Amino acid sequence: MNVQTNIDTSTEDLMANAIRALAMDAVQAANSGHPGAPMGVADMATVLFNRFMKIDPSADKWPDRDRFVMSAGHGSMLVYAINHLLGYDDMGMEQIRNFRQMGYRTAGHPEYGHAKGIEVTTGPLGQGITTAVGMALAERMGNARYGDDLVDHYTYVIAGDGCLMEGISHEAIDFAGHHGLGRLIVMWDDNQITIDGSTDVSTSTRQQARFEAAGWHVQSIDGHDKEAIAAAIEAARAETGKPSMIACRTVIGFGAPNKQGSHDVHGAPLGADEVAAARKHLGWTHAPFEVPAEVYDAFHAIAARGREARLDWEKRLGGHPKQDAFETAQANPDKRALDAAINAYKARLSADAPKVATRKASEMALEIVNGTLPNTVGGSADLTGSNLTFTKGMKDVVRDDFSGNYVRYGVREHGMAAIMNGIALHGGFIPYGGTFLVFADYMRGAMRLAALMGIRVVYVLTHDSIGLGEDGPTHQPVETLASLRAMPNMMVFRPADAVETAEAWQAALEMDGTPSVLSLSRQGLPTVRTSHTDTNMTAKGAYVLRDTDGPRDVTLIGTGSEVEIALAAADKLASAGIKAAVVSAPCFEAFAKQPQAYRDAVLGTAPRVGVEAAVRQGWDTLIGNDGAFVGMSSFGASAPAGALYDHFGITADAVADAAKSLI
Amino acid sequence: MNVQTNIDTSTEDLMANAIRALAMDAVQAANSGHPGAPMGVADMATVLFNRFMKIDPSADKWPDRDRFVMSAGHGSMLVYAINHLLGYDDMGMEQIRNFRQMGYRTAGHPEYGHAKGIEVTTGPLGQGITTAVGMALAERMGNARYGDDLVDHYTYVIAGDGCLMEGISHEAIDFAGHHGLGRLIVMWDDNQITIDGSTDVSTSTRQQARFEAAGWHVQSIDGHDKEAIAAAIEAARAETGKPSMIACRTVIGFGAPNKQGSHDVHGAPLGADEVAAARKHLGWTHAPFEVPAEVYDAFHAIAARGREARLDWEKRLGGHPKQDAFETAQANPDKRALDAAINAYKARLSADAPKVATRKASEMALEIVNGTLPNTVGGSADLTGSNLTFTKGMKDVVRDDFSGNYVRYGVREHGMAAIMNGIALHGGFIPYGGTFLVFADYMRGAMRLAALMGIRVVYVLTHDSIGLGEDGPTHQPVETLASLRAMPNMMVFRPADAVETAEAWQAALEMDGTPSVLSLSRQGLPTVRTSHTDTNMTAKGAYVLRDTDGPRDVTLIGTGSEVEIALAAADKLASAGIKAAVVSAPCFEAFAKQPQAYRDAVLGTAPRVGVEAAVRQGWDTLIGNDGAFVGMSSFGASAPAGALYDHFGITADAVADAAKSLI
Repeated sequence: MNVQTNIDTSTEDLMANAIRALAMDAVQAANSGHPGAPMGVADMATVLFNRFMKIDPSADKWPDRDRFVMSAGHGSMLVYAINHLLGYDDMGMEQIRNFRQMGYRTAGHPEYGHAKGIEVTTGPLGQGITTAVGMALAERMGNARYGDDLVDHYTYVIAGDGCLMEGISHEAIDFAGHHGLGRLIVMWDDNQITIDGSTDVSTSTRQQARFEAAGWHVQSIDGHDKEAIAAAIEAARAETGKPSMIACRTVIGFGAPNKQGSHDVHGAPLGADEVAAARKHLGWTHAPFEVPAEVYDAFHAIAARGREARLDWEKRLGGHPKQDAFETAQANPDKRALDAAINAYKARLSADAPKVATRKASEMALEIVNGTLPNTVGGSADLTGSNLTFTKGMKDVVRDDFSGNYVRYGVREHGMAAIMNGIALHGGFIPYGGTFLVFADYMRGAMRLAALMGIRVVYVLTHDSIGLGEDGPTHQPVETLASLRAMPNMMVFRPADAVETAEAWQAALEMDGTPSVLSLSRQGLPTVRTSHTDTNMTAKGAYVLRDTDGPRDVTLIGTGSEVEIALAAADKLASAGIKAAVVSAPCFEAFAKQPQAYRDAVLGTAPRVGVEAAVRQGWDTLIGNDGAFVGMSSFGASAPAGALYDHFGITADAVADAAKSLI
Repeated sequence: MNVQTNIDTSTEDLMANAIRALAMDAVQAANSGHPGAPMGVADMATVLFNRFMKIDPSADKWPDRDRFVMSAGHGSMLVYAINHLLGYDDMGMEQIRNFRQMGYRTAGHPEYGHAKGIEVTTGPLGQGITTAVGMALAERMGNARYGDDLVDHYTYVIAGDGCLMEGISHEAIDFAGHHGLGRLIVMWDDNQITIDGSTDVSTSTRQQARFEAAGWHVQSIDGHDKEAIAAAIEAARAETGKPSMIACRTVIGFGAPNKQGSHDVHGAPLGADEVAAARKHLGWTHAPFEVPAEVYDAFHAIAARGREARLDWEKRLGGHPKQDAFETAQANPDKRALDAAINAYKARLSADAPKVATRKASEMALEIVNGTLPNTVGGSADLTGSNLTFTKGMKDVVRDDFSGNYVRYGVREHGMAAIMNGIALHGGFIPYGGTFLVFADYMRGAMRLAALMGIRVVYVLTHDSIGLGEDGPTHQPVETLASLRAMPNMMVFRPADAVETAEAWQAALEMDGTPSVLSLSRQGLPTVRTSHTDTNMTAKGAYVLRDTDGPRDVTLIGTGSEVEIALAAADKLASAGIKAAVVSAPCFEAFAKQPQAYRDAVLGTAPRVGVEAAVRQGWDTLIGNDGAFVGMSSFGASAPAGALYDHFGITADAVADAAKSLI
């Protein structure tokens, strides 16, 4: 075991107090922030890092490092203090001094990509612990593929009361227990305080019993007793068949003599007097932002231990029979291979012109994708047969065998999205997962973090309009597309046929730095792209699907299942002598990034009609204020799909009439 | 106890089989739907209704009725079958025959307001059980206010595995256990099947232990043993200090001999052969949609029992010392009183012109509202001191004393939203609850149902932009306003000052049939409405706040905290000789409903510039495609608010420059 022994506990006291001092001083300087959590968990974190963590600040992305997730993200100063002390080269004292200031890495909540050693963006409660479940799952999956020599690490979490009150924590805990994620160790900062006061105000769940009910290994300790912390982590590591929860009874704001243990220390600076009192109380004689060499030395020893482990690991990797496979999985997807496979497939599709639902087309595209990329990991929130996310030859990931590539997420949409974040952040795998489009509402908290972090996660969201029919308005998205398009850095694809669906998968997988939504129909749709091109037209966002012979009288713009309607409307208009071009617009975000000249050429100068079985919001950028829109302005209804399209007036006749009214 | 004794169990067998037959026949006729759940829970539901339920189909809104919530909403045919058999006058056999068809009340999932006796719209899993928690809470609150004579009823829930896997169920269970909601009885349809197959595929939580950990009274029974069901419900009713969960082991699709117990019966018609086999297996000799008189008689006896109880209750209400108070609370808010109070308050505000954050202004308005309306119920998801939702004289609702009017929802946004739905649906109270605007993402599932149901719930969403400052992009909404504005039937108010905030509260409370969002600033804002009018200008959606002397050169349109910026920009433009009108647009949805002439007059014909610290999506309807927009196009950052506004260029100079570029 790669664990520190012969601990000098007096040094550990200093290490913990250094974290406390930096936290309270930084918050005081910023006049903003949360000193309570870092001061409360400083002992837990010190023991964890000093005796157990396997990390190398000089190689922050080393794949076999242990992961540390501060789920209680408001305690960001814990992370910054530790990373500073460990010697991450981007976390100098200037960063600490300028906590929460413009242009510094020390944001109010830890942000992935802003500084090294931050494994995940946290702050919205419950996200960290659930993302960690994804990391721990990916670790076991990697271990099953590449063996102990290459993948053998732990995921440690510090979670607060808020994290455990959020509903997503139930999804995380149930899933982790079911899958027996023995490398996941959650330390619960049981400080009995929330913003509104004592936890007695709002909860009385016995967390230990709750975790045990979900199949976890559970211990309860004094979170300030360093030997007890070490013993508990040892025991948690020894339990390999279950995830572990260590309930650590702590005092929030530990060390601030007049405020500790109350919610006053949660989210506000201690104040100069209390900072001074805390210094005295802790015996910390150093000026603000000054740390004695002894403390740096101790933290640097952790880094040195990690560096050694990393060098050993690199030796094991070099020449390992699975080296190539391992490195391929860590890298971006093989674009050349994927392009070749997709292009061959597209050519066949354009020739065969199948009529299939785009959810079925997605399954067909996934057969190609999963046959080409070795490290996709599929899944669904208990809608596998509806989302069509399981392709031939896939295998379930189960507790006794992590060698598969399909995850049964259960009826846990939010959990699925956060676990996929964890899989993507861990590296080595590309996660995709399905549910109905309308249930993006359940996942939004985690989807937003994926967009903010800029990670490659694909949401397979089927049953994407009133076209799902009888299940009715609770299941029919009308505003969901708009709500997702509103989100920065989220690509929303709504392909019209099997060809565009293949292109959407290609684009989603090849883009680096954005998650993607695939919005897919339940109902069958004809192939509209019957003429093959290798160019990924969907990745352009919008393109002229059917042009006119001579100047356009009108441009009809559709997405997804409504492109068929736009084409039929163009036919009707043609028979009335009106020349209508048809534009397919599968991705508004991609289109917005095209050169102005391309966009102008696609949209043309003739009047425009948009058609989408959803609300108009967001369409004005394509059709203009003067454009017409055929779509939804209310929730849907329960009836067969055809009856609903007629009832809500989303028909070729309506589009043709709208076009005529504009000309 | 108002409970049936001397049960003829052979009649109960018939009653349960009538439900099964109607469910399988209706799904077969629709060729769509979910027969498995209704057939599986028919015994539980029969015993519950036959021996316990206190409802009167001839007075479906009788306030003291028991509530029944089919949380597993896909089992809608259970509800329709029972309500048909009970004799609800809008649920004739034609409705059953036309299950899931256009224009009928028998929607794919039960929809509140579509048919009598449907207490809540369900389908999105986990919503029903959590909404039921709100109903059970409202019952105890009503009981505390009006006594046993007027408020004394139960809330019964049938929940499936899916409901208990969803994260929101944790929030519901924890909250209900903490508050000791003894009148809440949840029957878990433990059929061990989900869509993806056996529950073994995705969960292994011991639900009984989980509920016990949250402080529930728990029993486990055979869900097809009617005496066991009755005994368990009796015991659950006898336990008044804790909510009860009855784990009912059932066979999904009970009665379909070849398919029961498998996921094949979950979400698809049984098929003609299996329907015939089920008839034989159950000994059900009647043709489709035919029910013997004996069964109708038995269900009508339930209705008669309920009618008697209702008439007794009405006798108790008549002349009861609390009759007036009770009836006032059941009715819509007293508009005359509220208008008078708000108008007096607005006049003071316009005179005093305070500079306060709109979250503070909301607290000030709530002092008026809570002092005028006796039945508001405030709360926050653990951000009381930030949302400012607790006004003077409020009192916490706690497990031993439900007489208060403030709910500590804990760190449970989604649960809060669904519990508020339950309070509103129960009647007698008007719920409002707070969190940060960005965490609307966590609540969307329940907010969407509030909009779909058209119920009066107010979301107090503070910290509504980058103006919250240092907490950074995880906490800074940029797309949230657009995502909420996209939702049908959701009013989104973003007031600019204390006057508009008061008007927003007035509008939100007086509108019937829509939930409302109040989007409120963290940072201080000047009073911009310094000239008093009794007219609720905010309810018009947008209005000219500062007009020009003579024709406008440009119109500047702002919302919330950016109205101040628009005014400053107008000043800058004036000094350059440019006449800029300033429009405040606190509610896009309300503005869209104004007459065209009003809208034209407000927007004017001059070029327009919009300013809002959020994404542009949705603004084109106000500013036109040719309009300029000053706002956000990315996620925010962590820094003091002023620095962020400068960094992202949301300034009076930027607005003035944009205006100049258009002229």
